Amino acid sequence: MAKTIPYKIYLEEQEMPKSWYNLRADMKNKPAPLINPGTHQPMTAEELGGVFCADLVAQELDNDTREFEIPQEILDFYRMYRPSPLVRAYCLEKALGTPAKIYYKFEGNNTSGSHKLNSAIAQAYYAKKQGLKGVTTETGAGQWGTALSMACAYLGLDCKVYMVKVSYEQKPFRREVMRTYGASVTPSPSMETEVGRRILEAHPGTNGSLGCAISEAVEKAVSTEGYRYVLGSVLNQVLLHQSVIGLEAKIAMDKYDIHPDIIIGCAGGGSNLGGLIAPFMGEKLRGEADYRFIAVEPASCPSFTRGKYAFDFCDTGMVCPLAKMYTLGSDFIPSPNHAGGLRYHGMSPVLSQLYHDGYMEAISVPQTEVFTAAEQFARSEGILPAPESSHAIKAAMDEAIKCRETGEEKTILFGLTGTGYFDLYAYESFHDGRMTDYIPTDEDIARSLSKLPKVD
Amino acid sequence: MAKTIPYKIYLEEQEMPKSWYNLRADMKNKPAPLINPGTHQPMTAEELGGVFCADLVAQELDNDTREFEIPQEILDFYRMYRPSPLVRAYCLEKALGTPAKIYYKFEGNNTSGSHKLNSAIAQAYYAKKQGLKGVTTETGAGQWGTALSMACAYLGLDCKVYMVKVSYEQKPFRREVMRTYGASVTPSPSMETEVGRRILEAHPGTNGSLGCAISEAVEKAVSTEGYRYVLGSVLNQVLLHQSVIGLEAKIAMDKYDIHPDIIIGCAGGGSNLGGLIAPFMGEKLRGEADYRFIAVEPASCPSFTRGKYAFDFCDTGMVCPLAKMYTLGSDFIPSPNHAGGLRYHGMSPVLSQLYHDGYMEAISVPQTEVFTAAEQFARSEGILPAPESSHAIKAAMDEAIKCRETGEEKTILFGLTGTGYFDLYAYESFHDGRMTDYIPTDEDIARSLSKLPKVD
Repeated sequence: MAKTIPYKIYLEEQEMPKSWYNLRADMKNKPAPLINPGTHQPMTAEELGGVFCADLVAQELDNDTREFEIPQEILDFYRMYRPSPLVRAYCLEKALGTPAKIYYKFEGNNTSGSHKLNSAIAQAYYAKKQGLKGVTTETGAGQWGTALSMACAYLGLDCKVYMVKVSYEQKPFRREVMRTYGASVTPSPSMETEVGRRILEAHPGTNGSLGCAISEAVEKAVSTEGYRYVLGSVLNQVLLHQSVIGLEAKIAMDKYDIHPDIIIGCAGGGSNLGGLIAPFMGEKLRGEADYRFIAVEPASCPSFTRGKYAFDFCDTGMVCPLAKMYTLGSDFIPSPNHAGGLRYHGMSPVLSQLYHDGYMEAISVPQTEVFTAAEQFARSEGILPAPESSHAIKAAMDEAIKCRETGEEKTILFGLTGTGYFDLYAYESFHDGRMTDYIPTDEDIARSLSKLPKVD
Repeated sequence: MAKTIPYKIYLEEQEMPKSWYNLRADMKNKPAPLINPGTHQPMTAEELGGVFCADLVAQELDNDTREFEIPQEILDFYRMYRPSPLVRAYCLEKALGTPAKIYYKFEGNNTSGSHKLNSAIAQAYYAKKQGLKGVTTETGAGQWGTALSMACAYLGLDCKVYMVKVSYEQKPFRREVMRTYGASVTPSPSMETEVGRRILEAHPGTNGSLGCAISEAVEKAVSTEGYRYVLGSVLNQVLLHQSVIGLEAKIAMDKYDIHPDIIIGCAGGGSNLGGLIAPFMGEKLRGEADYRFIAVEPASCPSFTRGKYAFDFCDTGMVCPLAKMYTLGSDFIPSPNHAGGLRYHGMSPVLSQLYHDGYMEAISVPQTEVFTAAEQFARSEGILPAPESSHAIKAAMDEAIKCRETGEEKTILFGLTGTGYFDLYAYESFHDGRMTDYIPTDEDIARSLSKLPKVD
């Protein structure tokens, strides 16, 4: 007999995952390794160790170990804001008149406002363990920088954040939260680094981009004693840490015998999507269960749906290793009228390989439709969603509406990655009718793709 | 044998309170009734019914019924964001090196960002039930207006908000959230109402005040067909709805045999404090248990600690009934450099009576000390607190530090009423060293108290 399913499922402390799950262990086709841009050989642990913390390099390179035990200090920190609730969207279902059952895993109930904290505390922990003084990073919409500054404050590490200039100017509040947690925040591109000065010379007045801020943060880390660089998405290690989202969701669903037919996540660099789907995708890869996975990306930055699967630089300044991924070219910078995050030119190599191998679908959606969905969700479910998360909301609503038409009672799970408290200028422009849908032309994309590095 | 106490206690759905608790039923000295400013006679249900919804008037006047069943529709809405967690502040305890056990009931995990939603949905529900078109209200820091707009969107009611002008200008984001939920927001004083025009004439360039916004909202309600006025604090009915905070906290604490020695809440109009302490105070009034209760108010608006217990107008425009309460005079307007809410000149009649009868203590704290405590709390516990809530944090930390000095293992419970996402200008001014401590002089207070209405 089925147990009564609560409206919101919170795991008990003893039910919470004690290990992260490494999806790569179950992939037949492993993601391509990061390669050295000079030699085109796979990056060694030693080479990566100059940029990243040692334990994180080990996680990055390990395609075989299925489970990594979560250190107790990180579990202690997780207890402050985890488990996150798995919520049944009864009100949204009612508003849509759909027979579909919609669930969302809500990661916004912490001060950083998003799932980014799951990896921030892990990366800060390993930096501290290695005896470092601090870490550098970049941030776009500011969720990652906020999360990292919280984690560093907790552990007593210094935190230097390069913030994409357009966000630095449009999101002073994010900056102030980071400052509350003691981080230093620099608008990027800046005159502080060689690569920043070079980019400013080539593109005076640029709004900046994630790729460019990454270049600056990496340069700062490798040129400063006792510092390493940390990254909030794309990397294998980040997806490993974010698996906690999917693990919690799966434990909760298994407990109540709920089987999701469709699992949906927004996709920028892939950290949320990769974490959410991990244990479900593991079952699919092992042939134990089947699920439909949908990656949702913005029409203004469509790496899966219009990019190329190729080796490319992770950053604009071309100082980072090359990763094999779906990419729009490291030179691609989405229009500044694009709201929120998800503006990265590339995509997680793990997710890229899975998409390439046909395990996952991808769609892109224009931003005014995303905000329409966001507003309906807010009014029905009470939560003001982040623009990033609202891409997943839009896709989940569309699937639920299809169910209304076909009468199918599908179960849909989507990742609600964060809250929109710091995105109210974007909501304002939507309410005022000033928001437009920027969609790059084929020529725009061909132009940036033409600069891909040549790798055999 | 004691059960293991989780880090965060979430009640199960079946454990959640199904009724609100009316503290007045257990008070020997009942709070004084609202009186008609013209006749000085107690306001009748009929008189109040012109301003408030009928069911809410019944709740307002009922000093005897101990429990009011929560209607199913409200329980359904509560499920969207309740239960709120009762959190053990392990990290803060460690940072303070105190043997005290600190718990907080966190009400900020909803889009309105505070506990105000508990009463907003109740008041909107009764308005809807009465077949009204909409409601009017005022908002200061914006938490109440946001909460009400969410509740009205959910029920399909129109919502007109008069927002204290200084907050309207300093908090455009709050305004935008209300707009997301479909509310109309007018800066107060405005030219839309007679009382607004009168106040603007007398005080051109005024920053506005809660009392003044109340006057406008009341005038709008009584002069518009199908509308009533709703209020987010002070009133008996609001404390009744907010008892859900204390009831949940008490159920959770009883479940794990935790007995709080000290219960602390910030106090503006008293909605959070009154709700948090309700079931505990009930036990104290009935002689079943003892607790120390501490109300914490800002030094810039100290109605308990420096006000007078007397009948006064609830609003600046003197259109509302008179309430017997601790008051600084309805003419008192705290300095605009005072951050956040808690800027109301009076205090809940229920709490005023209890304070007058010696059941509760009150202290006032200056705002720079409050922000120092807020920042330490954020860095330890991960949550960015609202300035209002941080008054309680400051007092709880001080009590915990006393325990460090005496070695006592006291158990402290405080109300963390909301998040500070929309208060980052205040945090910025604190970080920049621009924040000052405004404390009214004795003459300031004597001047506004001299205008109290004469009531026998």
